[in-house]
Amino acid sequence: MQTKGVLGQLIKDLCYLPGVGAKTAQRMTFYLLQHDRKSARRLAETILAAIDTIVYCRQCRTFTENELCEMCSNKQRDTSRICVVENPADVWSIEQARVFNGLFFVLHGRLSPLDGIGPEELGLEQLEKKLASGHIKELILATNSTVEGEATAYYLSDLAQQHHVHASRIAHGVPMGGELEYIDSGTLAHAFNGRTKI
Amino acid sequence: MQTKGVLGQLIKDLCYLPGVGAKTAQRMTFYLLQHDRKSARRLAETILAAIDTIVYCRQCRTFTENELCEMCSNKQRDTSRICVVENPADVWSIEQARVFNGLFFVLHGRLSPLDGIGPEELGLEQLEKKLASGHIKELILATNSTVEGEATAYYLSDLAQQHHVHASRIAHGVPMGGELEYIDSGTLAHAFNGRTKI
Repeated sequence: MQTKGVLGQLIKDLCYLPGVGAKTAQRMTFYLLQHDRKSARRLAETILAAIDTIVYCRQCRTFTENELCEMCSNKQRDTSRICVVENPADVWSIEQARVFNGLFFVLHGRLSPLDGIGPEELGLEQLEKKLASGHIKELILATNSTVEGEATAYYLSDLAQQHHVHASRIAHGVPMGGELEYIDSGTLAHAFNGRTKI
Repeated sequence: MQTKGVLGQLIKDLCYLPGVGAKTAQRMTFYLLQHDRKSARRLAETILAAIDTIVYCRQCRTFTENELCEMCSNKQRDTSRICVVENPADVWSIEQARVFNGLFFVLHGRLSPLDGIGPEELGLEQLEKKLASGHIKELILATNSTVEGEATAYYLSDLAQQHHVHASRIAHGVPMGGELEYIDSGTLAHAFNGRTKI
């Protein structure tokens, strides 16, 4: 019933959100209509504002409303270190950890020849220009530890070497508070191979 | 970081959706911006269309785009039976079960004197007019089996009696496929008290 009409359309469109299935979308639909509609309108208007105003930072390709993002326009940051990540969400995670004071470079993906994603799609030409400038001391590779993420990190370390820039990879191992009993064997193998002297 | 700006606003506004916390909202925000923005725009526009066009059905108070809902405008339905539910979502659930061919009446709540919700807020005057018309044979009470839902059902059965209309309450008991071992004792008590001859 009523799966035509605007009600059905709203349920269908809410399913576009990640992690939202038909049942959740139905609950959201009734919630949006039943409770204060002003908040629902504000949500819709914010989505429109965001997709209209959010662009890529001209320097690091993360999301920003301006030409340069918060980090790139901050004079306090160490411009000689660049951390390469796959997504803008990764930038957020690292910023929230307050662990890095350099600049970022967002690939918006990873090398994946089968999907037709090569160096050009990831803006690597732009990154190479920075590396060639002679100003960069370290390239920190924080791509995900998937097969493609590792391959991308390897490719980038090669690129850094060509320009005599020191490249490093973030450590992979047992997460803080993690119990060995529950850690998968791939992570454990990484943790053993990457052991450091104490 | 970046919790000001339109990005932070979008995360905050998405938290308005039921079941969405800060972390999920953040993931949704990046998803909306990173993937095809046309779908994101359509979602926002559908929300706006829905809150602008969806009104209460003039007869049964469920959600509809027109003056009368699908059920009330369907000449095939049994107009002598009315099923009273708390929310439009309940109408959907019952319609999806294809178990009832009569009309509905949506309270948009339940009697709750402490919250200032009395008969007026639930549109009971409108329901009483229907009962008084002499055309109604049965009033099926499908309010939730909470304390307030039960009290509302009791109040409505009283109202039906005053107008010599037969009132019934949907059965509460062990759900189909439910194993006794996992059923709470309140439901089990209901199931025993409501046992029928076979």
